[in-house]
Amino acid sequence: MTDFFVDTKFHVRYAETDAMGIVHHSSYIVWFEEGRSEFMRRIGLPYSKVEDMGFYFSVLEVNARYISPAVYDDIVVVRTRLVEVKSRKLAIRYEVLRDADGKLLAEGNSLHICLNREFKIARMPQELFDLLKRHCVCEE
Amino acid sequence: MTDFFVDTKFHVRYAETDAMGIVHHSSYIVWFEEGRSEFMRRIGLPYSKVEDMGFYFSVLEVNARYISPAVYDDIVVVRTRLVEVKSRKLAIRYEVLRDADGKLLAEGNSLHICLNREFKIARMPQELFDLLKRHCVCEE
Amino acid sequence: MTDFFVDTKFHVRYAETDAMGIVHHSSYIVWFEEGRSEFMRRIGLPYSKVEDMGFYFSVLEVNARYISPAVYDDIVVVRTRLVEVKSRKLAIRYEVLRDADGKLLAEGNSLHICLNREFKIARMPQELFDLLKRHCVCEE
Amino acid sequence: MTDFFVDTKFHVRYAETDAMGIVHHSSYIVWFEEGRSEFMRRIGLPYSKVEDMGFYFSVLEVNARYISPAVYDDIVVVRTRLVEVKSRKLAIRYEVLRDADGKLLAEGNSLHICLNREFKIARMPQELFDLLKRHCVCEE
Repeated sequence: MTDFFVDTKFHVRYAETDAMGIVHHSSYIVWFEEGRSEFMRRIGLPYSKVEDMGFYFSVLEVNARYISPAVYDDIVVVRTRLVEVKSRKLAIRYEVLRDADGKLLAEGNSLHICLNREFKIARMPQELFDLLKRHCVCEE
Repeated sequence: MTDFFVDTKFHVRYAETDAMGIVHHSSYIVWFEEGRSEFMRRIGLPYSKVEDMGFYFSVLEVNARYISPAVYDDIVVVRTRLVEVKSRKLAIRYEVLRDADGKLLAEGNSLHICLNREFKIARMPQELFDLLKRHCVCEE
Repeated sequence: MTDFFVDTKFHVRYAETDAMGIVHHSSYIVWFEEGRSEFMRRIGLPYSKVEDMGFYFSVLEVNARYISPAVYDDIVVVRTRLVEVKSRKLAIRYEVLRDADGKLLAEGNSLHICLNREFKIARMPQELFDLLKRHCVCEE
Repeated sequence: MTDFFVDTKFHVRYAETDAMGIVHHSSYIVWFEEGRSEFMRRIGLPYSKVEDMGFYFSVLEVNARYISPAVYDDIVVVRTRLVEVKSRKLAIRYEVLRDADGKLLAEGNSLHICLNREFKIARMPQELFDLLKRHCVCEE
């Protein structure tokens, strides 16, 4: 399929900065999560609904590479792409851009495992799998 | 003057929830701050500009009253009113509403002191004072 | 009864600071919580056990007054006193001190309501009430 | 050199948990930072002193792998090793263990670049380099 991504945009909060005067590196991990929340909403299945269905996309791995700092009041864009979908796993890629000039500030990835209510690894329901697969920039 | 307030609206982030399954009470303090950030932007003087001018509105006091819990993915509205403006101090009032039904989830206040770059108490510049005063729901 | 309080001590984390170069005011709200966690552990009933028993001490109100800033790497002490115990409610008072010189950095209060698993207001079990009452600096 | 690591130990805070009932994955990134703070203190050069000398160890990359969840009130140990020291860069490795049984909960790495006060890449002072090198589990 052609490229598919979801952008979510917000202001940097003061609480997200640190004593260096810039955004603390852990805040980007929270922003990635906000990126995938918006991704799920936009494809029509908010993650809160996934949990209502009895499943979690638990985080197995996360990584981030920091390129240029964001500061308080910047508008940042989190660009989110689903890059891999398996029956029990998914991988997501993120770019954080400064809205004013499009500069790439950070990028990262997260890997998720599908768990059921008992926190056991589980196949995701077929409809969920199909929906994700349709919105995946997967390489086969 | 007639009532004046600024609303800012966003989704509850997963990271803002806690093991009770609801939003952690400290998150509202961060939301209040996001409310006053938006307030300052909307009246034409983003707080980042206040800092560029060499001043801080340092937090002296904050309080919050929790009425009903927000949960992940809720859209919340922070309604912010400036309720007192003195040459060195300001007081702000917040309401957090659930966007779906307008229900009041929490309310609170913060009190700020104007500091200069050396963290000494300082009169705010006249233009800043006047601008704030014009947007204040002050009781005289 | 004579004065009874519990001290908990830890280093300020870098993530808790903000662009002013000092600890963000919302971090103290988290520290208060850490203070009451330690309080409960020290009187022999960790809050995790309270939840295991099927109860929550949900936060109804919180307030904080900021006196002097903490900075990264400071050792801070949270001094916690239980100041009111009712069958369904409790009130806690906090002081945050800088360990190096005992300076008072902030103080605050929180008010809690006892909820059961269904998030309904509930009387706390008698043994829990008695234990709390015994460690309360209550004014009658 | 033989293995050298620094352990830092603390209770899981309620604010660090999320609606899954476990610690939010972004909290581990903050814990890693707390691990390297303690590492620096223990080798005799608190990171606050590094900043006083005019240098920052800015985060270039971070990654984490989650193995088993921590919950509120758990005592966790962050085991920190310095694994690479260059004149302008350092790499650190972290393990998060549950204190009760030594179970590995998460592991990760961070890569840092040395910046000066103007946020330009800089060689770290020789004494700082030597101190770090002496406490590094470096592979040459």
